[in-house]
Amino acid sequence: MREEIEKRIEDIAELYRSGDYIFSPEILEGLKPPDMAEIITALDMGVGLAFFKSIDLDLSAEIFPVLDEGVAREFLEELEPETIALLVNKMVSDNAADTINLIPSEKIPLVLEKLNREDYRDIVALLEFNEDSAGGIMARELLVIKKDITIGKAIDFVRAEVETVKNIQNLYVVDKEGVFLGIVPVVNLIIENPEKRVDEVMDVDIEKVNVEMDQEEVAAIFSKYDLYSVAVVDGKGKLLGRITVDDIIDVIEDEANEDISRMAGTGDEEFWARSPLMLAKARIPWLIAALFGGIGSAMVLNGFRESLETVLSLAFFVPVITAMGGNVGIQSSTIVVRELATGAFNPSETARKIFRELKVSLLNGGLLGSILFIVVVIWLRDYRLATLLGLCLFCVVSWATIVGTLVPLLLNKINIDPALATGPFLTTFDDILGIIFYLGIATIFLKWFAGG
Amino acid sequence: MREEIEKRIEDIAELYRSGDYIFSPEILEGLKPPDMAEIITALDMGVGLAFFKSIDLDLSAEIFPVLDEGVAREFLEELEPETIALLVNKMVSDNAADTINLIPSEKIPLVLEKLNREDYRDIVALLEFNEDSAGGIMARELLVIKKDITIGKAIDFVRAEVETVKNIQNLYVVDKEGVFLGIVPVVNLIIENPEKRVDEVMDVDIEKVNVEMDQEEVAAIFSKYDLYSVAVVDGKGKLLGRITVDDIIDVIEDEANEDISRMAGTGDEEFWARSPLMLAKARIPWLIAALFGGIGSAMVLNGFRESLETVLSLAFFVPVITAMGGNVGIQSSTIVVRELATGAFNPSETARKIFRELKVSLLNGGLLGSILFIVVVIWLRDYRLATLLGLCLFCVVSWATIVGTLVPLLLNKINIDPALATGPFLTTFDDILGIIFYLGIATIFLKWFAGG
Repeated sequence: MREEIEKRIEDIAELYRSGDYIFSPEILEGLKPPDMAEIITALDMGVGLAFFKSIDLDLSAEIFPVLDEGVAREFLEELEPETIALLVNKMVSDNAADTINLIPSEKIPLVLEKLNREDYRDIVALLEFNEDSAGGIMARELLVIKKDITIGKAIDFVRAEVETVKNIQNLYVVDKEGVFLGIVPVVNLIIENPEKRVDEVMDVDIEKVNVEMDQEEVAAIFSKYDLYSVAVVDGKGKLLGRITVDDIIDVIEDEANEDISRMAGTGDEEFWARSPLMLAKARIPWLIAALFGGIGSAMVLNGFRESLETVLSLAFFVPVITAMGGNVGIQSSTIVVRELATGAFNPSETARKIFRELKVSLLNGGLLGSILFIVVVIWLRDYRLATLLGLCLFCVVSWATIVGTLVPLLLNKINIDPALATGPFLTTFDDILGIIFYLGIATIFLKWFAGG
Repeated sequence: MREEIEKRIEDIAELYRSGDYIFSPEILEGLKPPDMAEIITALDMGVGLAFFKSIDLDLSAEIFPVLDEGVAREFLEELEPETIALLVNKMVSDNAADTINLIPSEKIPLVLEKLNREDYRDIVALLEFNEDSAGGIMARELLVIKKDITIGKAIDFVRAEVETVKNIQNLYVVDKEGVFLGIVPVVNLIIENPEKRVDEVMDVDIEKVNVEMDQEEVAAIFSKYDLYSVAVVDGKGKLLGRITVDDIIDVIEDEANEDISRMAGTGDEEFWARSPLMLAKARIPWLIAALFGGIGSAMVLNGFRESLETVLSLAFFVPVITAMGGNVGIQSSTIVVRELATGAFNPSETARKIFRELKVSLLNGGLLGSILFIVVVIWLRDYRLATLLGLCLFCVVSWATIVGTLVPLLLNKINIDPALATGPFLTTFDDILGIIFYLGIATIFLKWFAGG
């Protein structure tokens, strides 16, 4: 079944790509909007856009929100403001706001002025919230009922509204001022007595989130309490919208992609940019930083020129020291960064975690230092160099562990994304300090080394 | 509200930790099972276990499945088989099976023989599926109705069963043989005429997954189609269970953690192991691999001893070449690895992606090579060394890009986790080849360099 669909997507994309096609709705029969979005993504920009334009408005308004971000941006650059406004009018409020956020900024007013009056208010209200906040990901469409109506009336209300709201799981109960009180799951409408008032049967012990809460925090709440949807309220407790779990899945995936792109030393564009120039731009700042780090290492090595001329073998082990420092630093920082990002980090355990990392580094540093000692003794038959290298490696491992654990915590404290600590910046820093430490000690004991 | 709960969790954990506590249910009032799990995780093993044992069985069966994996494993080692069986009896089938999978293997038969007879069959059936398959994450509890009953009867059925199944969103419709036909969303029970048969109103155009499908693939389907739950069927289409989106969130987070731990060069235990010894064990294989890679680099450098003795400055730029090769390789491999893991990779685009990476590397390699050329000219006033370094960097960047893109694709083809390509293995490999390339060319042109 699944393979069939994948196969069909491939075939259709191939057909369109070859230029040998007639745009006909039949060809898409049985496929859902996300499948069509996949076809469009697989096509070249021009063909994809022509295909998209050939689809009727209702369907294309469903396809657009599930397009790749990079493709969506390209389309919004090309499409007329009128066409975009027609599309946006057909979307639910959160998708509409997300779409407007992708439009090139000079075009936004042109689109906004062409929206329906009623949509306009909902969408502009959403645009005012930070894109990464609960307000930025919530939808305004939800079924709201007053606390003093009966279950029977609530059922009538659901019947009347079932076409306007997707995924109806809960009714949201408010008081006269619009303050959120609780929910009535749809299944309870069936099992409760229709004469009862909703505030007699509503579930009050449920999670709600403030409209300004960061989306990562919202995601952590969904994940912790296994939620399907959550009410969004303002500072006074007034109900503003709801967030559903399908949007949270996007947040969790984006968050993981963000962590991963930082670790890889590249921008978030990595996951949606399509043009080589954009990708190159996303990656180059990190590479330039790493290049200057490397040049810094070269300068440090130049500073130890005399020692290296005396004992050239010292230079051979520079890659060992730098590689191990970098690897150990990334191991230690990654777990901290990830726990901070997913909300799993418990501040009361900070000291315990640092202490634990220290123990790990003593264990591994001891083992690695010993291995290096033995290898150097066997290979070069030089006990002095072996001792120096074994001890240095032990120190570098311990020290990179501590730096790797502390730096993300400090960055987090001063509100800088701790994920930066897992990228090339920290490893470059570790490299330079590792070389200074290693050759510094070697230079101090140089006479002893040179066999004096 | 949220902060209050966090604060209370901290206070209670602190109270228990201090030893100055009386186990009383009141202290936990207003907290939900995931909050209590958080308290237990923040406590030392002994105190946490004593606390857990003091909680009544119904509640502790809700807490256990949301405990940290590391804590859960520790508890299962300590608890009597009888106690574990009592807990497992109270859990829904998928949590029960997950719990049994964490029990030390010698203890599993002791627990299984103490289970209720009816639970036993459901759980053993689940245990037979691969833990990472749809069967491994599905629950057996769901509301199944025959296709020829009326909506009215279906409503009666929901009323009778509402206590036994959580999160009722859909009824699952089957034929006489138990073959899955479609779903009836609960909200449709309200809006449809009670006289109609369910097969007249059921939704047939919905996603279902085979019981053997890999959980990552299931997660990709949830994410693509914005699903809340999905029916799981066997090869003949028989309905076996359902997977709900809360379990999919766990899959997505685990998957991201797995990618991230591979990139960091550590085992998956990183995210749940609590003892330093276990963490050290998870990390050491990667470090030993990197250490031998570093020793390999040292040997390669030793092989170029003569060249380095002639022009010592060559050695200073080894860290530049290795660091840049590593960084570029990780950038290119990460995106491929991530797309493969999340199902976003479209095989028909392979050639286009490789070609795009090549363009990116030409752009960035050219820029980085030029920067290095200029810096070396200014710093060392050595045009020859600058030319060598600029060209070598350009080549290493291009080459690391191609290797970084192709290696994960090849690993994937031969069914090895492509995420291994983002860890220390690839960077170590890049390091050694980068050094050979750089010093190899330098040696060929050595006379020219040495100013001959």
